[in-house]
Amino acid sequence: MPHETTTTTGPAHRHGAATLTIVDASGAPLRDTEVTVEQTRHAFTFGNIGFDFVDLAADADADAAAANADATAHLADLFADVFNTATLPFYWGRFEPERGAPDTRRLLAAARWFGERGIAVKGHPLVWHTVQPDWLLGLPTDEVEQLLRSRIRREVSDAAGVIDTWDAINEVVIMPVFDNGDNAITPLARARGRIPMIRMAFDEARAANPNATLLLNDFDLSSAYECLIEGVLEAGVQIDAIGLQTHMHQGYWGEETMLAMVDRFARYGLPLHLTETSLVSGDLMPAHIVDLNDHQVDSWPSTPEGEARQADDVERHYRSLVGHPAVEAITYWGITDADAWLGAPIGLVRADGTPKPSYDALRRLVKQEWWLGPTVLRTDERGAVQVRGFRGDYRVDVRGTTAPFTIADAPARVHIVA
Amino acid sequence: MPHETTTTTGPAHRHGAATLTIVDASGAPLRDTEVTVEQTRHAFTFGNIGFDFVDLAADADADAAAANADATAHLADLFADVFNTATLPFYWGRFEPERGAPDTRRLLAAARWFGERGIAVKGHPLVWHTVQPDWLLGLPTDEVEQLLRSRIRREVSDAAGVIDTWDAINEVVIMPVFDNGDNAITPLARARGRIPMIRMAFDEARAANPNATLLLNDFDLSSAYECLIEGVLEAGVQIDAIGLQTHMHQGYWGEETMLAMVDRFARYGLPLHLTETSLVSGDLMPAHIVDLNDHQVDSWPSTPEGEARQADDVERHYRSLVGHPAVEAITYWGITDADAWLGAPIGLVRADGTPKPSYDALRRLVKQEWWLGPTVLRTDERGAVQVRGFRGDYRVDVRGTTAPFTIADAPARVHIVA
Repeated sequence: MPHETTTTTGPAHRHGAATLTIVDASGAPLRDTEVTVEQTRHAFTFGNIGFDFVDLAADADADAAAANADATAHLADLFADVFNTATLPFYWGRFEPERGAPDTRRLLAAARWFGERGIAVKGHPLVWHTVQPDWLLGLPTDEVEQLLRSRIRREVSDAAGVIDTWDAINEVVIMPVFDNGDNAITPLARARGRIPMIRMAFDEARAANPNATLLLNDFDLSSAYECLIEGVLEAGVQIDAIGLQTHMHQGYWGEETMLAMVDRFARYGLPLHLTETSLVSGDLMPAHIVDLNDHQVDSWPSTPEGEARQADDVERHYRSLVGHPAVEAITYWGITDADAWLGAPIGLVRADGTPKPSYDALRRLVKQEWWLGPTVLRTDERGAVQVRGFRGDYRVDVRGTTAPFTIADAPARVHIVA
Repeated sequence: MPHETTTTTGPAHRHGAATLTIVDASGAPLRDTEVTVEQTRHAFTFGNIGFDFVDLAADADADAAAANADATAHLADLFADVFNTATLPFYWGRFEPERGAPDTRRLLAAARWFGERGIAVKGHPLVWHTVQPDWLLGLPTDEVEQLLRSRIRREVSDAAGVIDTWDAINEVVIMPVFDNGDNAITPLARARGRIPMIRMAFDEARAANPNATLLLNDFDLSSAYECLIEGVLEAGVQIDAIGLQTHMHQGYWGEETMLAMVDRFARYGLPLHLTETSLVSGDLMPAHIVDLNDHQVDSWPSTPEGEARQADDVERHYRSLVGHPAVEAITYWGITDADAWLGAPIGLVRADGTPKPSYDALRRLVKQEWWLGPTVLRTDERGAVQVRGFRGDYRVDVRGTTAPFTIADAPARVHIVA
């Protein structure tokens, strides 16, 4: 038995093991040698929205000094210390407000900026009925479809290799029937039907980037979404992951409700991504509000009591979901309260840039309890050490040589020449 | 222009016309001759449940004198005077409480009894997760599926020609997830998925009776049912009509809500059947009850105020739905309050056998306003009269000869030898 280090905390189904055998240049095992191993990345997606960094990244790209660059850089450090994935906004109406002038350069600069920091990027969303370009209005349905297809191909293909995960289509359950003001997508969805809309989004995105991970994403977690998913699967459309939104402005649902919901969607054998998680650190939104967008308040402060509750909620939410084998991603919906959705104090960082207790609670889980920090081991008589821990990327340092290795589902055997 | 009689009342899209040319044995037109035309049946399905008549029909069949035969015969007259279709119960758990001993003879006797009275019969339901046989419990899933398939084939094939309309499957939206006590169908639906369950029901029923009209039927009229229907249509399963339940124990929904719902389901271009309509003539069930079955009361009387409201509700409900072109059937869920579902006063006839105002209101619509009673016309110089009216079956009497004719979508030309 090689010497072993084990992360014993956290759910066992997240763990894996690697056996490292250290040899010298001649191939002889380095016995009884000190090595240092440490985790560098989680395989599990701990995501957050990266909307706040698009300007910073664009400015950095242009080498301009923004007034608030320092604050944003500080926020970026907080982001990168906990999250390994950023969701960037591709809402068509904002991405291409003027027909033919998409915001590709700025968004891809932001995506690369994250990439340089080891943070993967997900695009959100390719098809939705909200935040749509005005210039689509009044065009014939067939032309809207062609423009939508082109836009999917363009965004996915321009970003391929930089952004390889997409919410292919968003909120389809409500898409053909939601009274959402004037937009060109609702009538298209009504004319074509929900499943053809989904097939359209997945077909175009898949053709533009066969390596992409494509999600169906919805806030409607009722039987309606189950029925839709079953129809899509019967129709032979390949979904790579099921996206489940959980905006909890009206209060944390609790582990039991959340896991019962997750169990319902786990039936399909597909990875589950909790794509949009919000928990407030102030007053809760009244329970009678049906569409969260209908709750407009002048001021929605973060409070000490709210922050304590949010920290507790965040910890329970992540602990229970990381504990469910079907869940592969949790994306939180806001790093900071500044410019947060609906003005709600859902951020993990206050508007003044200081971390809330929820940030610290999540960091403790992600980077301590579920994380293998630098750990010194000694090789056995065959030059081997065994490392157990959360699945993800690791590195080993031995005699001045550094080598990466991965802990995945299957036990790995790695030979390192040092 | 032949002389004409027109039913000018009711929605024009329900009307049709037939031109009758009356000739003598030599083929010469009978000019200026008196003919009497009258309607004998509506093409539109005005249905009700026939559960109360199963025993009567079976007794009559056995030539036995039941104690309450007179009362039931009176109820049967009231039924036959308004309704042209009866729904009969084929709940598996009651139809075959002992494995291998189905209640086929009694149910088919009832179906024939209705047939002899010019009343078509519909079977309800072939597949459901409620009222299931106990003897299915504990059997392996594959065996449950085989037994279910056999039961569908058996019932549909035994009844072919007598019952040619079926609720092929009932309440699929909730089928795999509803916590409904111990039954063998919920686990089967969870294992197979909703669409395969629907395909199973339709495939087996279609194979057993290719002429049958097969319905998908649900009480969940939300987006979930739309998503399910779209998935089923994408999967290539042929649905003959979409069944929409409207049990309104908590109060009439009103024309606007009802028609907006109907419009959502009319999008699929399929006939819509309002399969289960209830309106109470007493206190309304409290609005907070979610599952109507959860409301248990010792006594739920019909009241004068309730009866006046029910009559008004019934008239508005039928008037608005007959006015919608996609609706082809409305089935009311109870002729009498005696033994009505949930003990609710939803009947159109009181428990003592006297008609409520709702019965009279509905009869007035179905047999007066929307109906062509015996009408005397004179043929023109070509021996012709034109008849306009609600689509359905008619007859003409001329010089002692009686001949049937039909008013359908396309104008008909009928030659009658008298």
